[in-house]
Amino acid sequence: MKKDRILLDHGSGGRMANRLIAEMMLPLFDNPMLSRLDDGASFDIPDGRMAFSTDSYVVDPLFFPGGNIGDLAINGTVNDIAMCGALPLYLSAGLIIEEGFPMQDLEAILRSMSISAEKAGVKIVTGDTKVVPRGAADKIFINTSGIGQIPEGVNVSGENARPGDKIIVSGTIGDHGITILHQREGLSFDAQMKSDSAPLNHLVARMLNITKNIHVLRDPTRGGVATALNEIAAKSNVGIRIRESDIPVKKNVAGFCSILGLDPLFVANEGKLIAFVEKRHADEVLRAVKEDSCGRDARIIGEVVSLHCGKVIMETAIGGERIVNMLTGEQLPRIC
Amino acid sequence: MKKDRILLDHGSGGRMANRLIAEMMLPLFDNPMLSRLDDGASFDIPDGRMAFSTDSYVVDPLFFPGGNIGDLAINGTVNDIAMCGALPLYLSAGLIIEEGFPMQDLEAILRSMSISAEKAGVKIVTGDTKVVPRGAADKIFINTSGIGQIPEGVNVSGENARPGDKIIVSGTIGDHGITILHQREGLSFDAQMKSDSAPLNHLVARMLNITKNIHVLRDPTRGGVATALNEIAAKSNVGIRIRESDIPVKKNVAGFCSILGLDPLFVANEGKLIAFVEKRHADEVLRAVKEDSCGRDARIIGEVVSLHCGKVIMETAIGGERIVNMLTGEQLPRIC
Repeated sequence: MKKDRILLDHGSGGRMANRLIAEMMLPLFDNPMLSRLDDGASFDIPDGRMAFSTDSYVVDPLFFPGGNIGDLAINGTVNDIAMCGALPLYLSAGLIIEEGFPMQDLEAILRSMSISAEKAGVKIVTGDTKVVPRGAADKIFINTSGIGQIPEGVNVSGENARPGDKIIVSGTIGDHGITILHQREGLSFDAQMKSDSAPLNHLVARMLNITKNIHVLRDPTRGGVATALNEIAAKSNVGIRIRESDIPVKKNVAGFCSILGLDPLFVANEGKLIAFVEKRHADEVLRAVKEDSCGRDARIIGEVVSLHCGKVIMETAIGGERIVNMLTGEQLPRIC
Repeated sequence: MKKDRILLDHGSGGRMANRLIAEMMLPLFDNPMLSRLDDGASFDIPDGRMAFSTDSYVVDPLFFPGGNIGDLAINGTVNDIAMCGALPLYLSAGLIIEEGFPMQDLEAILRSMSISAEKAGVKIVTGDTKVVPRGAADKIFINTSGIGQIPEGVNVSGENARPGDKIIVSGTIGDHGITILHQREGLSFDAQMKSDSAPLNHLVARMLNITKNIHVLRDPTRGGVATALNEIAAKSNVGIRIRESDIPVKKNVAGFCSILGLDPLFVANEGKLIAFVEKRHADEVLRAVKEDSCGRDARIIGEVVSLHCGKVIMETAIGGERIVNMLTGEQLPRIC
């Protein structure tokens, strides 16, 4: 029975830790950089601009429709790198595991990480495992950090939105957050409701293939689309106008939001992006997005204006206008 | 009073999270890469070989003589990169904070991180903050990941030990682990007992300045010197001989170990390195190490042999010989 659970020894850096790495981790993530098991990985990098990002994942529950903490941790950091306009290359994985955590769950999570890394075309080249005594952490937390290469001529930043830019959202919003909430509250099973957790780097590559004139990319995770748009409006010192009727929301997500009094604009996504694209390229980029499996429901939801700088204004479905603020308070702790 | 503690809102990605970043983090870590607050940092990298490493820090207690979790998190990852023979450049910081954590402690930890990064000459360029509900994590965990540049001609790896190599240890061993244990058990204050937490990258640069023929570098953290040597013996498929009488151990650390039945060879260090250096350069490298403030007590503790491959043998102080194994079991959970 003891062998079925993580023990403090597995985080000791000693014999048990070495065995866990050799028997479970290396077979799943094997690559020459990782398998040297040095204090860090080393690799050749071409001259140029790099992106570097980090995220810790503390999602609860660990397993949910459409994914688990493992693929979320890979996709999340792959996406953060992709949102810098970069091609993600190498990831690190840092695990903090609670003593007693089922070995079988750990293996399922690591397997998901391996599959997601494969899908995204990235390699996990370095890692760390800490085990803390029972009660010092809730089951498992995963940090992934990653680096990627920014192609020549690409200059994507939250500071780069310009009046006239069209705002594309790559699909329906709120799917991840509402799925987690649904699962956490033990609500009735809805086969249609699942997380959108997905790697967006191939989609970004497709977009940059059309034009380098993509000014901003952002994946609206915690805080949702509303918070991301507010941050961009502030950082670029521009106004943003969006149209409620153009924002894609799945029927069941919209229904669930309205019952609970949540606004899907503030709900987390894990496989969606917002892009600010120079007007003359917007339609062509949108077409390219829609050809990608992650972008079928993409829409242009609004544009950048030189009025009301720093503010996001929405034309409501009933013809009015309202200011969309940043998320205040916390709707859903441990959403990712 | 509420303002004195971390709330779930601080991890929401929304307004409170933005304020925490703007008011506490940016002033401490300000640099143009971080302050853009994009999903990742971007920077130019020269052509060549890079090192990439990650570590999560879960040390308990958070504050201890000689340091706290903040400088440990910076020094630890700086050292892991330096142990690849690389010049550390950029770090990420991922915080997982328990709801209710005192804001004042967070600020003290972040301030230590800032000072340590400055000392090591690295920049924190990207970060992430998650807040989990009370009880879901014990106070604060910190992940740091980092990248560095490997100078032309440097090729350091645990696989590269060669018969004849001299083994240098950069100073007294066991200081960090014994300090934490001492503190945790509430033992009487000993002014001489403090963690050796320190950045070793400047020391490594000094060594590589003497010769590129440094085959292995390792910082013996969890599992101590014994485990590190065993890993190297196995990976390089060589035998290792060390002499007990040459291993530097502080008197108070040795005394404390003997009372508790601990072997300092298995106790964690956070500011020491082991180097395997080609014989003809060993004395000169040792001299250079001793000139560094982190290497004053450095010694040659043994050498690599072509006998008993994969094993570490110690000539004991009383003239016998014994096999030194890897750490089995866990002496001290949450040591780093």
